[in-house]
Amino acid sequence: MVLYKNTLSLMVSVLLTSMVACKNKDSSQLIHGDAAQQAYVAPGEYDEFYAFLSGGYSGQITVYGLPSGRLFKEIPVFSQYPENGYGYSEETKNLFNTSYGFVPWDDSHHIELSQQNGEFDGRWLFVNGNNTPRIARVDLSTFETVEILEIPDVAGLHCSPFITENSEYLVSGTRFSVPIPQEDVPIDTYKENFKGLINYVSLDQEHGHMELAFQIEMPGFNYDLARNGKAVSHGWSFLTTYNSEQAHSLLEVNASQMDKDLMAIVNWKKAEEYLAAGKFTERETSYYHNLMDEGSGIVNSEEKTTTKILDPKECPDMVYFIPVPKSPHGCDIDPTGEYIVGNGKLSADMSVYSFSQIMQAIEEENFDGEFDGIPIINYEAGLHGIVQKPGLGPLHTEFDGRGNAYTTFFISSEVVKWNVESKEILDRQSTFYSPGHLVIPGGETRNPDGKYLVAMNKITKDRFLPTGPEMMHSAQLFDISGEKMELILDFPTKAEPHYAQAIAADKLMSNSKKFYPIEDNTHPYATMGEGNSRVEREGDEVHVYMTAMRSHLAPDNIEGIKVGDKVFFHLTNLEQDWDVPHGFAMQGATNAELLVMPGQTRTLLWEPKKPGVFAFYCTDFCSALHQEMSGYARVSAQGSDVPLKWGLNEELSDNREAANTFYEQAKARASR
Amino acid sequence: MVLYKNTLSLMVSVLLTSMVACKNKDSSQLIHGDAAQQAYVAPGEYDEFYAFLSGGYSGQITVYGLPSGRLFKEIPVFSQYPENGYGYSEETKNLFNTSYGFVPWDDSHHIELSQQNGEFDGRWLFVNGNNTPRIARVDLSTFETVEILEIPDVAGLHCSPFITENSEYLVSGTRFSVPIPQEDVPIDTYKENFKGLINYVSLDQEHGHMELAFQIEMPGFNYDLARNGKAVSHGWSFLTTYNSEQAHSLLEVNASQMDKDLMAIVNWKKAEEYLAAGKFTERETSYYHNLMDEGSGIVNSEEKTTTKILDPKECPDMVYFIPVPKSPHGCDIDPTGEYIVGNGKLSADMSVYSFSQIMQAIEEENFDGEFDGIPIINYEAGLHGIVQKPGLGPLHTEFDGRGNAYTTFFISSEVVKWNVESKEILDRQSTFYSPGHLVIPGGETRNPDGKYLVAMNKITKDRFLPTGPEMMHSAQLFDISGEKMELILDFPTKAEPHYAQAIAADKLMSNSKKFYPIEDNTHPYATMGEGNSRVEREGDEVHVYMTAMRSHLAPDNIEGIKVGDKVFFHLTNLEQDWDVPHGFAMQGATNAELLVMPGQTRTLLWEPKKPGVFAFYCTDFCSALHQEMSGYARVSAQGSDVPLKWGLNEELSDNREAANTFYEQAKARASR
Repeated sequence: MVLYKNTLSLMVSVLLTSMVACKNKDSSQLIHGDAAQQAYVAPGEYDEFYAFLSGGYSGQITVYGLPSGRLFKEIPVFSQYPENGYGYSEETKNLFNTSYGFVPWDDSHHIELSQQNGEFDGRWLFVNGNNTPRIARVDLSTFETVEILEIPDVAGLHCSPFITENSEYLVSGTRFSVPIPQEDVPIDTYKENFKGLINYVSLDQEHGHMELAFQIEMPGFNYDLARNGKAVSHGWSFLTTYNSEQAHSLLEVNASQMDKDLMAIVNWKKAEEYLAAGKFTERETSYYHNLMDEGSGIVNSEEKTTTKILDPKECPDMVYFIPVPKSPHGCDIDPTGEYIVGNGKLSADMSVYSFSQIMQAIEEENFDGEFDGIPIINYEAGLHGIVQKPGLGPLHTEFDGRGNAYTTFFISSEVVKWNVESKEILDRQSTFYSPGHLVIPGGETRNPDGKYLVAMNKITKDRFLPTGPEMMHSAQLFDISGEKMELILDFPTKAEPHYAQAIAADKLMSNSKKFYPIEDNTHPYATMGEGNSRVEREGDEVHVYMTAMRSHLAPDNIEGIKVGDKVFFHLTNLEQDWDVPHGFAMQGATNAELLVMPGQTRTLLWEPKKPGVFAFYCTDFCSALHQEMSGYARVSAQGSDVPLKWGLNEELSDNREAANTFYEQAKARASR
Repeated sequence: MVLYKNTLSLMVSVLLTSMVACKNKDSSQLIHGDAAQQAYVAPGEYDEFYAFLSGGYSGQITVYGLPSGRLFKEIPVFSQYPENGYGYSEETKNLFNTSYGFVPWDDSHHIELSQQNGEFDGRWLFVNGNNTPRIARVDLSTFETVEILEIPDVAGLHCSPFITENSEYLVSGTRFSVPIPQEDVPIDTYKENFKGLINYVSLDQEHGHMELAFQIEMPGFNYDLARNGKAVSHGWSFLTTYNSEQAHSLLEVNASQMDKDLMAIVNWKKAEEYLAAGKFTERETSYYHNLMDEGSGIVNSEEKTTTKILDPKECPDMVYFIPVPKSPHGCDIDPTGEYIVGNGKLSADMSVYSFSQIMQAIEEENFDGEFDGIPIINYEAGLHGIVQKPGLGPLHTEFDGRGNAYTTFFISSEVVKWNVESKEILDRQSTFYSPGHLVIPGGETRNPDGKYLVAMNKITKDRFLPTGPEMMHSAQLFDISGEKMELILDFPTKAEPHYAQAIAADKLMSNSKKFYPIEDNTHPYATMGEGNSRVEREGDEVHVYMTAMRSHLAPDNIEGIKVGDKVFFHLTNLEQDWDVPHGFAMQGATNAELLVMPGQTRTLLWEPKKPGVFAFYCTDFCSALHQEMSGYARVSAQGSDVPLKWGLNEELSDNREAANTFYEQAKARASR
């Protein structure tokens, strides 16, 4: 069962050769004649599916339509977004508070749509921050990020945020084990001092609010990916790990020594029992919970200071391991909940486990030792079977609901279709080039919509017009409704998607909010009606209660601001129609501009540095008179006695007289 | 010639009604049967054109392929971009230095590709920052922003950066007039104190470097859009203005009083003569010039303190005006250089001017008075003719090279094709909904590639799957190769494009850089070879000379860092192959992550706040062992005596012995 250590160098050279070789592949894959029609969504028609792709190093989420492959939106989540002022506006910037301070960027990886009965319910979307461990919630009625919860005492939250079939919990595991709690210890004390955590975040079923319910202390491995059981396996979580070697340097070699690593299997219903019975330790820590108030759109940050820890040694029958060959990446469960696929990225074969066999092995205590008090289930006892030589470098598997699985092979650059029951390989299609994740709409749920498959590929090279050294990644859309997969379309994806989920359009469309009803706006600085627009001074703070309505800002002339003031522009968009945002830009502001949706109030801070008269304007082309939607703010020296003054059209009468006179003036001058 | 003032309210109500009415339009425009095939670019094939779209409030540029409408890249220009560390990395952050301080956002509007002989040469791309007045240059071999020049003493650089036909100059005009130099004056002294400037930035023909050559002081209008003459009209610039009423509040009404505004016409060859003759005033000011060094990739910022001003009153025959009805927006010149179209957005008709008639009028001094010493050319004398009742709200016009013009009508939501010579209307097609700019590849040059037209529409509402209150804008692709325009495709566009230019793929593809040759890397902190990776302390600065190569970072274990240190990670990507970037993320860093292209060095500053052991990792999935590409940095308390230490795989021998033993350990423990 154990590979000899020197096979490693062979494996690594295979990897590297494959990486180089892929660019020479024949890319003239046969495209059947209907592909253009299949991918085409005519003007006036709609795509069939929303696909939500994580942004990887962008920290955001992108929304594509299927089958057209068109980008419909980038949803800002973990990174500041100058495009609309997200993370800069006074309302939204608290989303980035963490125990490390203000962290306005991250690396977002795994999309999880909320579920009921193992199917997507279209209410919320969750995604992890991989670097500074966090989970974000996006409201799917507004496509806005409304909550970010930090997870304490972990490092790298790659293995996250996997949802249970009734949205009871989001499960996550630490990618990098660290000293818990953090302390200054030598790195080579890894084995004694570094630990892992598996985290359970509970969801409020009405509002989706997140709360850290408990954490399970685990051996210091690297927790990579996970899925929760469904149907028969509901109540259990499955998490792959790598680096059971517990190396801390050159993991490329040192964490690839072992023939098998371990998959963690957690009985979370049992964990709930221990929790209820008080079998936990409360530990002091620090993490932030940032939640947007629905009425005002203002994010409130709260620092939390304790966490509940369950120790598997104290809580028998709660956690098990089972071996998985070799350095597994994805861990995927078929629609019946019975079969669990371990995608061993350095393994020549793929192991498929049976939930009922695992249960039986646990019952019979068919264990092959233990690690740190956690029983290791006998590999063969839990094994449904092996998919023989399916390809090189299996990473992820999704399902079509017709008994078939589809696995991406990073090294051999292909998607392979196989039968879950028989483990027989049914089809393989080349991808261009190395696929990471793949997505089938609902492909991880109890009820997949097995019409399309999207492979999300790395290493794009020659798939699109070149854009210099930095390129977008490529996605490839396959029709999987027939026996053989058919390639329909290549489309580029923004940043680096690491997983996506797709949902039928009709599950979201009808709930999509068109604007914010102004009567629901509870923002304390909202201006209800242009007549209430005004400017107020409180010490060196100046609050501008400003409104926007086609095609002017009110007030649009402001005087009495002084150098050293903090000027808060609270802009309320009074429109009540779909797609009439107004923007706001202030010359010399050093943070960002605002984009304010109808009915919303957003606040920009401006700290003027020098005297003069500075322009502001609407940045969203909102009407034929958009170019006229502008104004001036006069800034006086510190200590000046220019009084606070504001207005809209105060000089109108004068100006009317002055109008239409330039010809007269001009002629008069010319005749002089 | 003068409309009565009370027609204004009628006009405004027409505008608003149209805005509301558009949502009820019949969107089932007939799509002909070949449209799918025409828009489809099969996997393995390439688009015909690159289209560069400005990002509007995002401050960036997006690159789409035509005819597929696929987004290939977002090029960060004026806004920080967490996706790759642009504007956060030590090398690039100086791009955002301005006389207002560090301004990491803007509102980008007009794309200009460099030209020779009135045709695109594919070397550089320029775009304006509308809010904090700036012009940026993108190198089209790397698709990277390499230079940003601030323009002093203007406010809003909307009217920018229009290029001359041999890339001699970029011409721009102030959108908002302001006191020059800035001073604290009442806003209602607008007419006496507020002035405009027209700016000429010269381009170094070898490197594209920008330099502010001179500025022309102008009346306090709002300078909106411009074009430079070509062929017969080479040597002249044409700039539309609005607000010749010189209003400063409620411009929607007060700047819409006059029947006509004025187009400025500048003889820049004459201006060069005055400049050479010393007829300028040198004025003290402050603006920044930020330029990236090609070898190191490091941006250097220089503050400039003087500018040369030409005064039309002192420089006869340099600047003229001609009236344009009414509140004109676009100003567009046909491929022959003879015809100039004034798109009067509130005018019922469109005025087309003749360059040769304008020249004749100037020669004959056929003037209709003057404004602030600038002669106003008689409207009829310069007029080629009027396009009668073409539609409502004309904004922009492009040309197909076959004698036809295409104009967008914002209010009546259509694109109209008309013959330039005869002014006859040939075709009109509805758009969904209100089009702003349009682009035909090369459509503003001497040699348009008149196959496609893209209308860039505002107010998207129901064109794509809804994404909450905030939606992307829609573009519509038309085939214009036949007599009638044919709608092919709707595609969404990121942020808000305000103009685009498109260029044939073969003009750029062959020059597209695939990676940075490592031997050309002159970065002072570059690490040439993994053997040179190291850590150096200089006081409280720690410099990590780090390398990345599939699949490890070197060093990957670092100790001796202390709280209060400034840790600079200088990451050199040693790969020399296409599309093998490496990323770098440090847990708890409060700025961003890095994406480093092959052969490049990029630097991230990390200021650790607490002791502990923190993980870092590669953020770009670069190989099958990418998940293993990580490391640890140990942070000790301030004043600790933990020595500086770094390594890669130092514990390898130990670890090899430890490997493969967990079964033994596990069994041993289980049998206890």
